[in-house]
Amino acid sequence: MARIVIALGGNALGNTPEEQQSMIEAACPALVGLISQGHEIIISHGNGPQVGMINLAFDIAARENKKVSPMPLQECTAMSQGYIGYHLQKGISRELRVQKMPWQVATVITQVVVDPLDPAFQNPTKPIGAFYDEAVAEQMMQADPKLRMKEDSGRGWRRLVPSPKPIDIAERKSILNLLDNEYIVIACGGGGIPVVRDERGDYCGVPAVIDKDFASAKLAEVVGADYLFILTAVDHVCVNFGQPDQKELKTMSTGEADMYIQSGQFGAGSMLPKVEAAVSFVRSGWGKRAVIASLDQAPQAMRNESGTLITL
Amino acid sequence: MARIVIALGGNALGNTPEEQQSMIEAACPALVGLISQGHEIIISHGNGPQVGMINLAFDIAARENKKVSPMPLQECTAMSQGYIGYHLQKGISRELRVQKMPWQVATVITQVVVDPLDPAFQNPTKPIGAFYDEAVAEQMMQADPKLRMKEDSGRGWRRLVPSPKPIDIAERKSILNLLDNEYIVIACGGGGIPVVRDERGDYCGVPAVIDKDFASAKLAEVVGADYLFILTAVDHVCVNFGQPDQKELKTMSTGEADMYIQSGQFGAGSMLPKVEAAVSFVRSGWGKRAVIASLDQAPQAMRNESGTLITL
Repeated sequence: MARIVIALGGNALGNTPEEQQSMIEAACPALVGLISQGHEIIISHGNGPQVGMINLAFDIAARENKKVSPMPLQECTAMSQGYIGYHLQKGISRELRVQKMPWQVATVITQVVVDPLDPAFQNPTKPIGAFYDEAVAEQMMQADPKLRMKEDSGRGWRRLVPSPKPIDIAERKSILNLLDNEYIVIACGGGGIPVVRDERGDYCGVPAVIDKDFASAKLAEVVGADYLFILTAVDHVCVNFGQPDQKELKTMSTGEADMYIQSGQFGAGSMLPKVEAAVSFVRSGWGKRAVIASLDQAPQAMRNESGTLITL
Repeated sequence: MARIVIALGGNALGNTPEEQQSMIEAACPALVGLISQGHEIIISHGNGPQVGMINLAFDIAARENKKVSPMPLQECTAMSQGYIGYHLQKGISRELRVQKMPWQVATVITQVVVDPLDPAFQNPTKPIGAFYDEAVAEQMMQADPKLRMKEDSGRGWRRLVPSPKPIDIAERKSILNLLDNEYIVIACGGGGIPVVRDERGDYCGVPAVIDKDFASAKLAEVVGADYLFILTAVDHVCVNFGQPDQKELKTMSTGEADMYIQSGQFGAGSMLPKVEAAVSFVRSGWGKRAVIASLDQAPQAMRNESGTLITL
């Protein structure tokens, strides 16, 4: 029996509540398929489109109606954990019943600890929320000197937030405790609510977003997982992606991964963080393995019949 | 050692994220004070102002921008559980550190089961979300014959949703499991995400809201709690409230409560559901006790020095 952290992409969850529920229901047979092979499962998930929508809704509504407060990003992430966790709980419970399995499922609202000195705080790179005209953006930045904004792909100006690296999972013990009691745990949604420790040791939320693949790798490390599964839209990691000589990788050592990363084989916003997260987990201890595979092929990937296996 | 369910009013949590965090931090010494007396604690909370704000934000933003989807009420409640649970987790963790206590704290995203035949579904009574002009409201009701709307205190027309009674807590086992492992559990936020069981036994969300006092009483019943604490803004339940002969009650039997309810002593939207929920819990088993007290006097109420104790 292995302990597995499964990272689901936020883009695999659709753009509306109806889409989200039906895409999650479609994914659940593969997820529960892993459990029926006798493994322990923790599910983490992205929240890019979802936290973007929540943040945008509060941005727009707070301008229109004073009963709606502007909502800091960390609180939007907390909301997205409730929203997505609820749908995952429902979908997985249903599939457990169909497959007649005794496991329970629970969502843990998760804070992920980052370093206040992380250089990302000096260099915010993640665009989030509403689009503004250049003139409005200039005004906003003058009014708030800390605010960074950038033109985003010809669609307008957007706020940039930092994306620091995770260093610990605040709710590690809650997750382990549920896991020990035959729970499928949903945790670290959207990369977790980013917090820093203050001088007394208390957690304070910070307006940032944590990459869900890095958060999942850290989660896998701190719960002593054997496997990190990063589930996405493609069956394998590829080199020369989209070229005539494209090659699907069945296995990749961390050394090979380093080489491919250096030669620019992986897209910055897509495969690169997945491969980096996989490598960081595999290097965190002896015998750790990572798999990058497509969501619907997850049980096959567990049997080495699909996906890319990353080993030391 | 007693097992205690504590119900916090959503109105005690403020209207903005900043207010909410500071009001929760102010409440935490009293909450953690109960634990330091050696008790097991489950915290439930209301979400009236918060789910109203989330629902309103999506109502407004979905009209303005097609990237924002209209958000069903049950998903808004799931978001509010993440939002409020996160702040409670932070505040309680901090206070546990200050008081040097070893407990952990976790938020459980909770579905609360209601009966699809509950008469409340035929008679929606809870106003929620945006205010509309009468003409717009008429149009909306014509476009959607299931939609019920009502003029709300001269402020405009609002959607009405049903408020069915809770019959079970879907995440009962998760809550008990954490409690057995020295966790302070935050559960049933906003009365829980309302769900019905379909013919296969799966849970389906329904657009409704469950009264948080009734949900807390049901939670207290299903986890075998000894006490239900309903914490509010006043120190005692009163009869002849606001009259020259106002009388603060130190104790009240369920029979006395019935009598006061029948004679119209308690306000429909305020003290009445609290007293009804307390009575229903006390009658659910031998030796069960309920306390209605003010938030800042919770530890005193546990020592019978404040609040109204409701017994069989």
